[in-house]
Amino acid sequence: MDGSVIRQERFVDDYLLYLMARASHAVSSEFHSTLRKAGISVPVWRVLATLSGSPGETVTGLAEACLLQQPTMTKLLDRMVRDGMVKRLPDQRDRRVVRIQMMPRGEQLVRDLLVHAKAHEAEVLARFPGIDRAQFKQQLRAMLARPARSRRNASLVAA
Amino acid sequence: MDGSVIRQERFVDDYLLYLMARASHAVSSEFHSTLRKAGISVPVWRVLATLSGSPGETVTGLAEACLLQQPTMTKLLDRMVRDGMVKRLPDQRDRRVVRIQMMPRGEQLVRDLLVHAKAHEAEVLARFPGIDRAQFKQQLRAMLARPARSRRNASLVAA
Repeated sequence: MDGSVIRQERFVDDYLLYLMARASHAVSSEFHSTLRKAGISVPVWRVLATLSGSPGETVTGLAEACLLQQPTMTKLLDRMVRDGMVKRLPDQRDRRVVRIQMMPRGEQLVRDLLVHAKAHEAEVLARFPGIDRAQFKQQLRAMLARPARSRRNASLVAA
Repeated sequence: MDGSVIRQERFVDDYLLYLMARASHAVSSEFHSTLRKAGISVPVWRVLATLSGSPGETVTGLAEACLLQQPTMTKLLDRMVRDGMVKRLPDQRDRRVVRIQMMPRGEQLVRDLLVHAKAHEAEVLARFPGIDRAQFKQQLRAMLARPARSRRNASLVAA
């Protein structure tokens, strides 16, 4: 016993899923304060951002992109259609599929926010000159493209 | 007009905050299915994981680590104390500060989950051999350590 403090390591401080969730939350929270000042909710921003530069998205695609359940997304889109931000229209190739498209009112609402989002992103990346931004984004893109859900069934927990 | 399709690029597909949120959600969702099978809620898992290897956490620290509002965390901890998973006790140095510590019942509940979490993390990282895991984690740690909230006030949006 020499009285020295043994520095215990917390599990989460080296746990990938924790680090990703916290880091994502930290940078997103910064931008959410900009949204609050603009009076735009996070879900509305996410829909408008996802439709920016897109020829149209399905409800399923929007729900996935915006991290919302499909019924929640459907209700949100009802409101956004009513407010003239977006419209529903049949897919050009398969008319059974409904696509959501941006309307001029939505374009107008999101225009300034996109400028702020890009400026904020540049500011975040400038804080971390050690990060190769192209490589970092490519790694994240790979992660969201391959969730490998089927393989997860192998890991059963005896509770 | 040569009839070729001009590939429009969606804003979000190159937007750091979107890529981080989606990638984090994708990998976390995989582990959440393990939690469901074990009958443990995501917030309870987050508290137990954060307390693993920790000498004790404040309610504020736990709320931040678990991405919950402080009142929600307080209610969750009331239940977890009642269930014998954790206990509240005064900080050894400053008795006005309350710390949350793991109890044997919590340790027991989380033990198998920690094994599964580590195995899942290893599996996720094995899917992306291009990712330098130590570097990637270090980059995420830097991001969550420096939210730079004060500087955010500069970006006002005219809504």
